[in-house]
Amino acid sequence: MNNLKIVGPAMPDMPWEDRPAGSKEVMWRYSANPIIPRDALSTSNSIFNSAVIPFKKGKYNYAGVFRCDDTNRRMRIHAAFSVDGIKWDICEEDFKLVGADPEIAEWVYGYDPRVAKIDDKYYVTWCNGYHGPTIGIAWTDDFETFHQLENAFIPFNRNGVLFPRKINGRFAMLSRPSDNGHTAFGDIFYSESPDMEFWGRHRHVMSPAAFEVSAWQCMKIGAGPVPIETSEGWLLLYHGVLRSCNGYVYAFGSALLDLDQPWKTIARSGPYLISPREIYELTGDVPNVTFPCAALHDPATGRVAVYYGCADTVTGLAFGYIPEIIDFTKKNNIL
Amino acid sequence: MNNLKIVGPAMPDMPWEDRPAGSKEVMWRYSANPIIPRDALSTSNSIFNSAVIPFKKGKYNYAGVFRCDDTNRRMRIHAAFSVDGIKWDICEEDFKLVGADPEIAEWVYGYDPRVAKIDDKYYVTWCNGYHGPTIGIAWTDDFETFHQLENAFIPFNRNGVLFPRKINGRFAMLSRPSDNGHTAFGDIFYSESPDMEFWGRHRHVMSPAAFEVSAWQCMKIGAGPVPIETSEGWLLLYHGVLRSCNGYVYAFGSALLDLDQPWKTIARSGPYLISPREIYELTGDVPNVTFPCAALHDPATGRVAVYYGCADTVTGLAFGYIPEIIDFTKKNNIL
Amino acid sequence: MNNLKIVGPAMPDMPWEDRPAGSKEVMWRYSANPIIPRDALSTSNSIFNSAVIPFKKGKYNYAGVFRCDDTNRRMRIHAAFSVDGIKWDICEEDFKLVGADPEIAEWVYGYDPRVAKIDDKYYVTWCNGYHGPTIGIAWTDDFETFHQLENAFIPFNRNGVLFPRKINGRFAMLSRPSDNGHTAFGDIFYSESPDMEFWGRHRHVMSPAAFEVSAWQCMKIGAGPVPIETSEGWLLLYHGVLRSCNGYVYAFGSALLDLDQPWKTIARSGPYLISPREIYELTGDVPNVTFPCAALHDPATGRVAVYYGCADTVTGLAFGYIPEIIDFTKKNNIL
Amino acid sequence: MNNLKIVGPAMPDMPWEDRPAGSKEVMWRYSANPIIPRDALSTSNSIFNSAVIPFKKGKYNYAGVFRCDDTNRRMRIHAAFSVDGIKWDICEEDFKLVGADPEIAEWVYGYDPRVAKIDDKYYVTWCNGYHGPTIGIAWTDDFETFHQLENAFIPFNRNGVLFPRKINGRFAMLSRPSDNGHTAFGDIFYSESPDMEFWGRHRHVMSPAAFEVSAWQCMKIGAGPVPIETSEGWLLLYHGVLRSCNGYVYAFGSALLDLDQPWKTIARSGPYLISPREIYELTGDVPNVTFPCAALHDPATGRVAVYYGCADTVTGLAFGYIPEIIDFTKKNNIL
Amino acid sequence: MNNLKIVGPAMPDMPWEDRPAGSKEVMWRYSANPIIPRDALSTSNSIFNSAVIPFKKGKYNYAGVFRCDDTNRRMRIHAAFSVDGIKWDICEEDFKLVGADPEIAEWVYGYDPRVAKIDDKYYVTWCNGYHGPTIGIAWTDDFETFHQLENAFIPFNRNGVLFPRKINGRFAMLSRPSDNGHTAFGDIFYSESPDMEFWGRHRHVMSPAAFEVSAWQCMKIGAGPVPIETSEGWLLLYHGVLRSCNGYVYAFGSALLDLDQPWKTIARSGPYLISPREIYELTGDVPNVTFPCAALHDPATGRVAVYYGCADTVTGLAFGYIPEIIDFTKKNNIL
Amino acid sequence: MNNLKIVGPAMPDMPWEDRPAGSKEVMWRYSANPIIPRDALSTSNSIFNSAVIPFKKGKYNYAGVFRCDDTNRRMRIHAAFSVDGIKWDICEEDFKLVGADPEIAEWVYGYDPRVAKIDDKYYVTWCNGYHGPTIGIAWTDDFETFHQLENAFIPFNRNGVLFPRKINGRFAMLSRPSDNGHTAFGDIFYSESPDMEFWGRHRHVMSPAAFEVSAWQCMKIGAGPVPIETSEGWLLLYHGVLRSCNGYVYAFGSALLDLDQPWKTIARSGPYLISPREIYELTGDVPNVTFPCAALHDPATGRVAVYYGCADTVTGLAFGYIPEIIDFTKKNNIL
Repeated sequence: MNNLKIVGPAMPDMPWEDRPAGSKEVMWRYSANPIIPRDALSTSNSIFNSAVIPFKKGKYNYAGVFRCDDTNRRMRIHAAFSVDGIKWDICEEDFKLVGADPEIAEWVYGYDPRVAKIDDKYYVTWCNGYHGPTIGIAWTDDFETFHQLENAFIPFNRNGVLFPRKINGRFAMLSRPSDNGHTAFGDIFYSESPDMEFWGRHRHVMSPAAFEVSAWQCMKIGAGPVPIETSEGWLLLYHGVLRSCNGYVYAFGSALLDLDQPWKTIARSGPYLISPREIYELTGDVPNVTFPCAALHDPATGRVAVYYGCADTVTGLAFGYIPEIIDFTKKNNIL
Repeated sequence: MNNLKIVGPAMPDMPWEDRPAGSKEVMWRYSANPIIPRDALSTSNSIFNSAVIPFKKGKYNYAGVFRCDDTNRRMRIHAAFSVDGIKWDICEEDFKLVGADPEIAEWVYGYDPRVAKIDDKYYVTWCNGYHGPTIGIAWTDDFETFHQLENAFIPFNRNGVLFPRKINGRFAMLSRPSDNGHTAFGDIFYSESPDMEFWGRHRHVMSPAAFEVSAWQCMKIGAGPVPIETSEGWLLLYHGVLRSCNGYVYAFGSALLDLDQPWKTIARSGPYLISPREIYELTGDVPNVTFPCAALHDPATGRVAVYYGCADTVTGLAFGYIPEIIDFTKKNNIL
Repeated sequence: MNNLKIVGPAMPDMPWEDRPAGSKEVMWRYSANPIIPRDALSTSNSIFNSAVIPFKKGKYNYAGVFRCDDTNRRMRIHAAFSVDGIKWDICEEDFKLVGADPEIAEWVYGYDPRVAKIDDKYYVTWCNGYHGPTIGIAWTDDFETFHQLENAFIPFNRNGVLFPRKINGRFAMLSRPSDNGHTAFGDIFYSESPDMEFWGRHRHVMSPAAFEVSAWQCMKIGAGPVPIETSEGWLLLYHGVLRSCNGYVYAFGSALLDLDQPWKTIARSGPYLISPREIYELTGDVPNVTFPCAALHDPATGRVAVYYGCADTVTGLAFGYIPEIIDFTKKNNIL
Repeated sequence: MNNLKIVGPAMPDMPWEDRPAGSKEVMWRYSANPIIPRDALSTSNSIFNSAVIPFKKGKYNYAGVFRCDDTNRRMRIHAAFSVDGIKWDICEEDFKLVGADPEIAEWVYGYDPRVAKIDDKYYVTWCNGYHGPTIGIAWTDDFETFHQLENAFIPFNRNGVLFPRKINGRFAMLSRPSDNGHTAFGDIFYSESPDMEFWGRHRHVMSPAAFEVSAWQCMKIGAGPVPIETSEGWLLLYHGVLRSCNGYVYAFGSALLDLDQPWKTIARSGPYLISPREIYELTGDVPNVTFPCAALHDPATGRVAVYYGCADTVTGLAFGYIPEIIDFTKKNNIL
Repeated sequence: MNNLKIVGPAMPDMPWEDRPAGSKEVMWRYSANPIIPRDALSTSNSIFNSAVIPFKKGKYNYAGVFRCDDTNRRMRIHAAFSVDGIKWDICEEDFKLVGADPEIAEWVYGYDPRVAKIDDKYYVTWCNGYHGPTIGIAWTDDFETFHQLENAFIPFNRNGVLFPRKINGRFAMLSRPSDNGHTAFGDIFYSESPDMEFWGRHRHVMSPAAFEVSAWQCMKIGAGPVPIETSEGWLLLYHGVLRSCNGYVYAFGSALLDLDQPWKTIARSGPYLISPREIYELTGDVPNVTFPCAALHDPATGRVAVYYGCADTVTGLAFGYIPEIIDFTKKNNIL
Repeated sequence: MNNLKIVGPAMPDMPWEDRPAGSKEVMWRYSANPIIPRDALSTSNSIFNSAVIPFKKGKYNYAGVFRCDDTNRRMRIHAAFSVDGIKWDICEEDFKLVGADPEIAEWVYGYDPRVAKIDDKYYVTWCNGYHGPTIGIAWTDDFETFHQLENAFIPFNRNGVLFPRKINGRFAMLSRPSDNGHTAFGDIFYSESPDMEFWGRHRHVMSPAAFEVSAWQCMKIGAGPVPIETSEGWLLLYHGVLRSCNGYVYAFGSALLDLDQPWKTIARSGPYLISPREIYELTGDVPNVTFPCAALHDPATGRVAVYYGCADTVTGLAFGYIPEIIDFTKKNNIL
């Protein structure tokens, strides 16, 4: 792993806390979790499943789009800014979309955003309500105005995650076809677009694992943060779901995807990296959920900080080293 | 709201605790919640979803009927008395019913009682097992002997709540038609009776809200405490249910009903007032339940204290001001 | 059975066909079934589950209310008249209701009517859509104008069937509490009303039978035609449902109810009288349905003619002798 | 309707049979139905849900792609040719696809084909198994070699139907997002593609109708034959599904879509055109199915012949006049 | 196949009808099907899923145990006798069991019998109700007295079928573990017993086939008649079930099992032999069922006659040649 | 109870903690619960539902087999040893099975072990994956090598628990027939075996209780620790399950079984002994589970220590006196 190359801008001041003494965990939780309380906004019921990215604006070094459910339990997305990536100033108003074709412009609901920088634009994808959940897309260059594009797919789809650069000359997206309820199945697919308007060349990436092999991911899986490019392949953190007699348990693990043909999986971890264990993950609006949506990383040190929703209620941080995660993925490969 | 008139006896010494400093919540929890532990009786598994009312008896100022599940997990109703409305002396024996027609007199199960004073009698309604859940009725004037009347409806019905006076010359009741399991639907209806024996003139009051409008009440709703009469209409606190992939979440909000035609809704809150957030609401026999069954209020100060079941396990108290709740309801009206 | 007394007007010319030679069936089908084709109306998809009664009007000797689903598959009720009870002239327009309280007057849907003569009025009951299925009521004295009364119950209810006279000084009705879909359970209840507006004194009559005892009625049951008064009790024909891996099968049998306390069952047949067997019962919009809604009988001869819906598509007739049916019920009693 | 213009090649010898004397039906069945027996092939279990189009080849005037399930009950597509459009010579071998990207080239299953001529190519679309059902596409110019293109969408999708010309400069398709079982929901969507490889600009066209308005189409709907262009709009025949307690019933009706913005519905029929009624529609591998997949029409006479699957077992023909169907659609419009 | 040896007694006069001219079917139906009407008994609703075996008694050459559901729809088993194997005299009384341990002796229900001759006794197995369905066993030597043994297994189990001789010195049985409803899964297992009292050495034989490979058997499978011993292995006819949106479809095919280790499958047919096609198979109490329970065969000619239940209502016969069926199984092997 | 005799070896140093002052509980929790953390192994996600038994080995006095799910959430069984029964040394490697017939030797999954000493061998039973869950059996005399025998039953079965001596000259086992998911039903059965290879003489022991009688055990029940022999009968601790709208709740109570005919129940407790109440029982991988698998007892003092899984995550201890538990069982008998 000495020669591992990690792509991305330097981020020496990214959020970080060392591995606790004595811990052998590949990823460890931030000791001050949750970093964002559920009522950070005057109208918020919960803030979780949110995405962040480096972005310089005045005093701020990071920007993001946050899932903020209000006390109607309506799902809304709010822009947010931060100096250190841990303490966040969230806009009281939800993000404003402009420019959509009138046929799809009406806001119904939106949740679980991700944000990717491709060339000089920041693209937000989210689960967008249009006669069922599908993947909404908008770009911004200031996190104030968001230019809405066409929905990527026909419903039903969730967890649309863009790659941070074009692949084979086209935009590339992971997503998870779904149905319109608490979907009990889910594979990850890969699709391409020449123009962010029309999508095709759909390829199957991964199915849930067999129960006997890796039970935490045996019912459905979905992409988490924007994949991280490395010389070993795209590092994908993804969530998996196990259904117990008392409901769904969301954990997350890792996979490596081929750089040029990302629908080909190089390795996939059997063990999870993080599974619900702390009281803020075990209890809340939806107990037993750890759901990653964004990651910051620093190529030089290999550090990665993962933002993940906890119990669909609050937001937590977990840390790790990319080389160790890649090593873990390959050593515990279930393919 | 200066001219708001609230109907009801003066209750200057009702349970109360001021809004915490810095809180902007319309209703706030009692800091000593839960007020009744689950094992207050030697045989009780849990005590919750209980109803109270002012009632002078010896040293006591309040009486009530309490849902006390025993360690067989059988659902029983017990009478209880209190000096201050917070500390309760619960009878070890469950309440004794007399006078029922033999055809319906056998006790099967009963739960979620409410109590209303109409003229000079105290009427208890509860979910009564008779070939399925229906609405049982009994009256008392001493909280020792309860005179059972006919069941109001054919099964399946739950959450029968009487108005505290006759309307249009007839007794009036809200209820929620159900099925015989963990009912996944539920509207509130209004019915009238000339004599507490025969019921009719059934009118539809409210359906669950649309998911995109107010998700906490999008699966089913049901009346909570006896409605409070005000010059703005009947103030109804009611529970709503959202189904996540991990089960039902019970929260509660408010509505204003027309004084003379209570099936006509004047306003209905989009945001909830209370939703599960504290550990005694998030965990217990049924996680994520806040379920209001009774309220005490003082017309002069506008204070209201709501008794609500927590996680189907213990009993909590929440406080607020009626004018503020009415204002909140109208400002957040989703009709 | 020599002394059996059957109540009702003489009907010497009622529809009739003798038992086929060699047949030992207690009830037998009319050889010219179905008597009403599915497209008897220019707009009808199907005509079935319909009720008839003796009524003199011009040349006609019988009147009725017919379930006629149109080619939108909307459920409608049409009045109809007949000289012989077999050939029917069905009004092209659906029956017109007047006089309902405006709150319930909007027509949503209505189906499976029954008609009973009580004193000098003809009361029609049907499954009436009002925020779910419930029991609608209207009376007529000319089968042209139908005066709508209050719905008898809160939803969800179906198969409301009136007794042909007051019992204990009150109107009396059988019904089957349901839910809002293809209900997989169903007991028969009995209710009383002093005025056809308010209903109460609800009593349980019968549950489905145990699978091992009488499987054709092991999932749900519901009253069929208006009960026939005899000195042995009320003779009730009722449908029962068995669920196979390929759906519901509707058959019908008989029971005797106490004359004064009709919720008390005197006898109940284990074998069915009619179960789907002919091609017009086995195939159609809903295969495997025989569903009785009305009966004509002649006290002197003991003859009874039962109108029953076939496969939710067409209407059939079956014949029998009341004394034999009562004898069959008692000899095969499963109580 | 005098000025109605119908687009399409002249087809004076298309299959035809006059409306039966006395019939008032808008569409009527061919008296010799079913036209193709289930065992026309030595290995076929059933032949149904098949598509045909005018195509001159030797003695043949029509070509088609036929759903032929074999006695393994595997779903296969076979090419077929006919002189008169009624008697068909079906190739014993299933259709051979060439040229697909290797990632998607493996055949899993395929069913319910449609065929559209756009410019000088014949495009076949079908429900194609690729990690769930999606829309497969291939073109041919000889009905011998079929050139497979990319799947149009991510699973789960069914009933992909192309328009017979580009709209707004792009290929246009109707489809119905589904799940991976006996889908209990289904709306029709519209999508565009510049190149038959990437698809986007997804628009919602129609949802199922309300139960009270048009029950035969209240659970799911899907496009049938390739839409027919007229001066009144695109004439779309589409199937709708009602779920009874004994399963799904498939009927079909008609709609008019805007010529330039086909996701805008001009009119939609409340009554069905054809619903299962004949024994070959009521019984078979899946009882109660009439499922249209193709239509031939002659602009001069306005005649249309619809090929529809019967009970998922055999193939039937129904006839009508386009002007009458358009008139029927507008007069019975439920929008 | 010239050297194929078939084990069993000579049966030159067994029921037989030659393959229809022009037919290429491996098995063909008897032209006089159904051979037993549903009302052959005065109390029978249906007679189907019945087992027969050569047995000389007076004028009779065949005996059997017949599933006869009565008009209570109670499932009962009746003994029957026949001269020619086609016309049957069925005992009016159901078969009488003696000798069972009192703990299991109470009759609850029993259905789908099979009969095997092992050494000099005739063993009947059936689905026996004992706190859920399990496998009942009894032996007889006169088809008048049946000596009941212990149930083979704990519930839930169905389709227990004995081999006609001991294997590895022990009795051997195929069965299908189930649940207590309309089981939606089902594999065939093999078990052994030294004494017909204790069972063990359970081995897995076959699972349902993949949907894409052989859909008629993709949901559950179960053994049919007693396996036929041949030099190629045990020839097993077995039923398979496909679930359409309109319910279960029961067809049957064939497999060859290893003679000494019958849990090892040598070959298994992809195509079915018989699937519902005739009106008496497509309609009845349970539409679309062809369910084989018994077979007669003549080693010299290779003829086999299969008795199969039709639509859970009547009994049919199908014929074939064992060498051809074995050939078919091997040529269409899906293993 | 003065003459109560309890069978078993003396265990004066068994784990123990006196009943807390003021407690009236029949069983009380250990104050230092949970005794085993979820990550006691480097690879463990959770350690629970584990069995222990007195066993002298070096410094150790107790041995056991522990359910240790790894971070793949694979279910594994590990041997463990302890000096005091509270602090455990768990082997890092899962237990190694030898000697199984090759047909069943492949390990798929195994969970919820029990261990019983019969004569001089220690028999482990567990839920063993073999084409569905069934009961695996192995014996050991050193807790290092485990000799695998035949599976006791055909799937689907769980909670197989051996009696600690032969009964009627045969090995005896309790088990619970299941299905292959989160089984929503479950009775306890009793079976015998002459040789631990073949099983039979299956008898029904107990069904779930009626909802109105003892709701905590109204959905399914299953045996817990190896039964304890006393002069009053076999003392059986067993779990019961209640299904709330938020999932399953596992509690446990007690029953007395006849010494010679253990399928005959002498007494059965209505109230539970332990039901989820502490945070380590209320939250975890499966909230609201207390699941007993083993017990240590000392005949002289009557003390019993029960090991039970908590929330499918950690292991807890609860204490009581056998005479008091027997007394409690008889006084609260629901039979």
